[in-house]
Amino acid sequence: MQMDRILQIAVPLTGVIALVYAFLKAGWIKRQDAGNATMQEIAGHIAEGAIAFLKREYRVLAIFVIAVAVLLGVGYAQSETSHTLVALSFVVGAFCSALAGFIGMKVATRANVRTANAARTGLATALQVAFSGGLVMGLCVVGLGVLGLSILYSIYSNLFVEYVNGVPTELSVTRVINILTGFSLGASSIALFARVGGGIYTKAADVGADLAGKVYEGIPEDDPRNPATIADNVGDNVGDVAGMGADLFESYVGSIIGTMVIGVTFITAFEALPDFHFPLAGVLLPLALAGAGILASIVGAFLVRTREGGDPQKALNTGELVAALIMFVASYFIINALLPAQWTAPDLSRGGELFTYTSLNVFFAVIIGIVAGTAIGFITEYYCSAEKKATFHIAKASITGSATNIIAGLAIGMKSTGLPIIVLVAAIIGAASLAGLYGIAIAAVGMLSVLGIQLAVDAYGPISDNSGGIAEMSHLPPEVRQRTDKLDAVGNTTAAIGKGFAIGSAALTALALFAAYMQQTGMKTLDVSQPFVMGGLFIGAMLPFVFSAIAMEAVGRAAADMIKEVGRQFNEIKGLREGTAKAEYAKCVDISTKAAIREMVVPGVLAVAVPVIIGFIDYQMLGGLLVGVTVSGVLLAIFQANAGGAWDNAKKRFEAGITVDGQSYKKGSDAHKAAVVGDTVGDPLKDTSGPSINILMKLIAVVALVIAPILVSFHGVQIVPPLQAGGVLVPAPTQGATGPAAIELTPLE
Amino acid sequence: MQMDRILQIAVPLTGVIALVYAFLKAGWIKRQDAGNATMQEIAGHIAEGAIAFLKREYRVLAIFVIAVAVLLGVGYAQSETSHTLVALSFVVGAFCSALAGFIGMKVATRANVRTANAARTGLATALQVAFSGGLVMGLCVVGLGVLGLSILYSIYSNLFVEYVNGVPTELSVTRVINILTGFSLGASSIALFARVGGGIYTKAADVGADLAGKVYEGIPEDDPRNPATIADNVGDNVGDVAGMGADLFESYVGSIIGTMVIGVTFITAFEALPDFHFPLAGVLLPLALAGAGILASIVGAFLVRTREGGDPQKALNTGELVAALIMFVASYFIINALLPAQWTAPDLSRGGELFTYTSLNVFFAVIIGIVAGTAIGFITEYYCSAEKKATFHIAKASITGSATNIIAGLAIGMKSTGLPIIVLVAAIIGAASLAGLYGIAIAAVGMLSVLGIQLAVDAYGPISDNSGGIAEMSHLPPEVRQRTDKLDAVGNTTAAIGKGFAIGSAALTALALFAAYMQQTGMKTLDVSQPFVMGGLFIGAMLPFVFSAIAMEAVGRAAADMIKEVGRQFNEIKGLREGTAKAEYAKCVDISTKAAIREMVVPGVLAVAVPVIIGFIDYQMLGGLLVGVTVSGVLLAIFQANAGGAWDNAKKRFEAGITVDGQSYKKGSDAHKAAVVGDTVGDPLKDTSGPSINILMKLIAVVALVIAPILVSFHGVQIVPPLQAGGVLVPAPTQGATGPAAIELTPLE
Repeated sequence: MQMDRILQIAVPLTGVIALVYAFLKAGWIKRQDAGNATMQEIAGHIAEGAIAFLKREYRVLAIFVIAVAVLLGVGYAQSETSHTLVALSFVVGAFCSALAGFIGMKVATRANVRTANAARTGLATALQVAFSGGLVMGLCVVGLGVLGLSILYSIYSNLFVEYVNGVPTELSVTRVINILTGFSLGASSIALFARVGGGIYTKAADVGADLAGKVYEGIPEDDPRNPATIADNVGDNVGDVAGMGADLFESYVGSIIGTMVIGVTFITAFEALPDFHFPLAGVLLPLALAGAGILASIVGAFLVRTREGGDPQKALNTGELVAALIMFVASYFIINALLPAQWTAPDLSRGGELFTYTSLNVFFAVIIGIVAGTAIGFITEYYCSAEKKATFHIAKASITGSATNIIAGLAIGMKSTGLPIIVLVAAIIGAASLAGLYGIAIAAVGMLSVLGIQLAVDAYGPISDNSGGIAEMSHLPPEVRQRTDKLDAVGNTTAAIGKGFAIGSAALTALALFAAYMQQTGMKTLDVSQPFVMGGLFIGAMLPFVFSAIAMEAVGRAAADMIKEVGRQFNEIKGLREGTAKAEYAKCVDISTKAAIREMVVPGVLAVAVPVIIGFIDYQMLGGLLVGVTVSGVLLAIFQANAGGAWDNAKKRFEAGITVDGQSYKKGSDAHKAAVVGDTVGDPLKDTSGPSINILMKLIAVVALVIAPILVSFHGVQIVPPLQAGGVLVPAPTQGATGPAAIELTPLE
Repeated sequence: MQMDRILQIAVPLTGVIALVYAFLKAGWIKRQDAGNATMQEIAGHIAEGAIAFLKREYRVLAIFVIAVAVLLGVGYAQSETSHTLVALSFVVGAFCSALAGFIGMKVATRANVRTANAARTGLATALQVAFSGGLVMGLCVVGLGVLGLSILYSIYSNLFVEYVNGVPTELSVTRVINILTGFSLGASSIALFARVGGGIYTKAADVGADLAGKVYEGIPEDDPRNPATIADNVGDNVGDVAGMGADLFESYVGSIIGTMVIGVTFITAFEALPDFHFPLAGVLLPLALAGAGILASIVGAFLVRTREGGDPQKALNTGELVAALIMFVASYFIINALLPAQWTAPDLSRGGELFTYTSLNVFFAVIIGIVAGTAIGFITEYYCSAEKKATFHIAKASITGSATNIIAGLAIGMKSTGLPIIVLVAAIIGAASLAGLYGIAIAAVGMLSVLGIQLAVDAYGPISDNSGGIAEMSHLPPEVRQRTDKLDAVGNTTAAIGKGFAIGSAALTALALFAAYMQQTGMKTLDVSQPFVMGGLFIGAMLPFVFSAIAMEAVGRAAADMIKEVGRQFNEIKGLREGTAKAEYAKCVDISTKAAIREMVVPGVLAVAVPVIIGFIDYQMLGGLLVGVTVSGVLLAIFQANAGGAWDNAKKRFEAGITVDGQSYKKGSDAHKAAVVGDTVGDPLKDTSGPSINILMKLIAVVALVIAPILVSFHGVQIVPPLQAGGVLVPAPTQGATGPAAIELTPLE
């Protein structure tokens, strides 16, 4: 029990440290000079628009959250293995995610103008401000995640855990974690709104602003006179800061809870060991790792600084690298301290057979997670980078027109799924060989452990981007714009890496949740040759396609509204074209906001209703659905992110000037115009439909996990715990034809 | 044994009837008037180019076939459950498919000019000629398929089937079918080359011809002066006639063989029945259905005729409908005649549990297949049709430019995966509920049973299209062109339906082959929660993406070569621009030919090597791979086919003139130009990469099935036949937690 107590204090403490440090950083940012009046006015518009969106979104969300909470409460009233408190977890999870998003946005919209102002004097401080803005977001996400989870866990375990001979029973701990999954569902709900709604918002503004110039004569595309520019800048914050934050908050929480569920299977095994007195080690390990990751992130963040004329990329890399190294070492000691050196327990990835685990192998699984996440990020960066072959290929294809540009981009996007999938498969097989399904889940936790600093680097990008926009609109001297451009260029790279990382972690989290679902429904195998499972697989695989289509069409509709509004203002506001009158920015912000909220209803309902319906038809079919949505979701997410990123940077190549077969092409050439088409096509793919799939995968898995206890009683599933203390070992028939003979325990009744 | 003998004569006889009838039809077509000298010259160029391509392709193929045959021979030298004769099956399968393609092309390139000439006098004869051209192709495919399979089966069964008490042993029949799978592999190899190579050929010419006008000033796009036009017309034959034919030949053969493999499991059960003396009924049923389908197709074909001024669509529909109705009735009687009313046998879709089959339910499974294939075809047509909402939506999006056109098309393509997948899932679950995995396989056979007439309707499209081109290039009077346009418009609809049907049948065939693979490797379940299976699933799902990318890039490269060549000719050949000198068509044909053959190497190697490598790593992983490639393959194939088809018809809407929000847009407007971009993007998607995936799914499954005996001995799999005569029934533990208690037989040793 000793270790239990320590963790119950230490883990929430790391959450508190994260929040306190975030608070201090936020104060420091606020104290920075916000620049001249023009800058402050523009930044004010952006901040106002961003907060206005969040407020409107949260109002809708509040209704949604209350409704779902009531449904959960009612649904669980009869459940023997869960409790109506799952509704409380849900509300707290939603609140934590929303709060992290709110603070992150608030600080980001303060940091952008201060970064611009700092860039007037030098690069070093500008980097500091932008990164600090991101860090507040990152620390709020991990801090609130860990704090919320650990405190709820403490409360529930005090209420519900039952002990037999001083050992907590598997059933009661499972119940506690069941109730806790509500937290994850809350996080997922906010993520859905923030990612899908945010994605629609940002691209409606972006695509609308770009295309208004095409439809109406003489409207400048990137210019303060274009009424949609402010909405465009707001969108960067809404989509890339709050949306990305909520996405990774969901992964963070989901991977931890998925691992906790699987960790329950170790209780009996641990109890049977002599000289080992911490049966909950497997359950609490993910929280301990997350707590350590917070501290590692903070230490890493200290090292993100550069001298004047230095390379911001290097500074960011150093910070992330140091955090990862600390995590390497810390996880080794934590795992050694918490887990026994060796134990035997059933493993679902081996059909429920007994498997011998070692603490060293669990450590290696964590490492696999960290390495795989980084690898997928860098592969993404390779395909999207403006310096690499892929974007040159697309740029070259632009010479023969936009059709060939599009074909080339689609091909690059599809081809780019190859390596990340191989990395993912290697990680799955590696982690599972080392430590079974627990290995896969803990690898996801490892991948996300230093999320604090990773998210800081991610959010740094849009802040830098915004600062550049503010510098331009406020007509600051060119050297300022040069500095913000330097920050922004780095931001593009980190954004690409971040996108790959988000997909990889979403996939591993979805698998962890799938494993948890299998366990909660008592499945030992999931046989795809069964028609319902196969059917679930097909339907699951289809969902990301339909979901993407809905998101794209939503952007199309919202962008069309935006184009009309821009046209109206140019027609009705006298002097706007000449720059003597002001555009009505707020109207455009309003259009994006309304569209985002209106358009997220259908995908939201789809994502929640489908798993529920399928689950009530057949709970194994729902298992197939989870696998299908993950497999096709990862592919479609990578395809869309990389095609979009590659198109974007192929276009940027023309801005610097590009030479193909001895002929040079510049900005404004026909080839460049063709490349702009690709960029516009890629926008909703990489920023709306693609990232939405991350949410879809996890949300469906979380919904499945949350309703698992209801499905179990609805279908009358008899759950036989695979290993019951005092059971008798009897040989069971082999799985398939070759596997080693399975050992199965018959529970004593 | 009586029924056995009857089928061994009757089935090959239907094949002979098909071939004789095809021969007569081909003679009739040849006797039609081929028109004036100009027409004959142009048609000559097309025929020459098409045959030149086939000859070159077959030369490469011959080397490939010999090499693989040697490998197979060597690989199977040691196999106890198969035989080196598998190499012979392979060669015969490849030969039959190649021969069907050769005859089909030859006749199609004769029918095109004769259709154009017939259109000079009236629509009715033109329809007759075009449809007859297609019918020759259709009948050659089904005739050679059935003839090849049934004769080889007779030979092998005489050689290898062993009898115990007059009953053939499961092991020896399995061996015969094992050897027969080589036929399917041969068909798949040709399909790969014909579909992928043909797809690259046709789109290199098409895209190249279209874009040459963009790159070089003043080159007309659709005009006899453009040197790539002949290659473009050749491409229609190469891709849409020979490619489609080989694709469906593969499905046809694959579905029959997959069902035969599963039918073996009924031998013991049938033998145990009193008063039933045809243990091979389950094995031979698919061949009997295919034979009946040939006759139904021929009867249906008689009804394809129209009066002057009639509707060709109606005539084609009548023919197909009558054939389907005959098949409905015939299959009822055949199934009743061959199968016992009721029997019990193990079913792999129920984890190898015993299941009670009835002949009536098998009949319903066949009906499900026919209905599902038709439904998927019509859904495809809905999304692609020029009259429907989807294409209007894309056309409308074209007003704001090519970027929004592309986004709308991508969204429609993705959205259009929803309904077909639901139909497919309903078919899978329905067929399996009725008759287990055998039900799924026989549904595929049902779907493909009237392929003779379906393929005739499919191939009718490109023949009509070609005839229109010839009419235009030969400057025939406008009423002729009007008639061919009428035929062509119908051809576009049938092509869309045909594409959907090809995808649906490929999916079901791939599943039938997967089921056969499971059976041949002795798997009773395939548990996706096992990491290797999960890994296989991910890698399998990734392959269609990478495969599509390779195909698209190949088209891009080949089109670039074509553009250069067109430019060269316009620069170097004096008078070409003015129409006084002739273009060197042959050079362009040559470029497409070379590119197609060069570019099919990598995807070919990929499709064959990956399943072999994965299979040797872990044979269950290969099972996961098959499922993954099918699931993601179907989705990506539908997405690409429908996006491409919708873009195509959205463009065509402008040709007729379209009114949006009160404003009208015509051919040549900016909106139309934007729509042309979408059409060009869609070309390789719908005609190269999309259809290639059909092949990929089936080829990988066939490779797996063919190497199954080798994998079994390599991995030392002990195959326990689920039901052995005289075994003892013992209760086995349940699969998962809820299923009814499984009954398993312990073989007596």
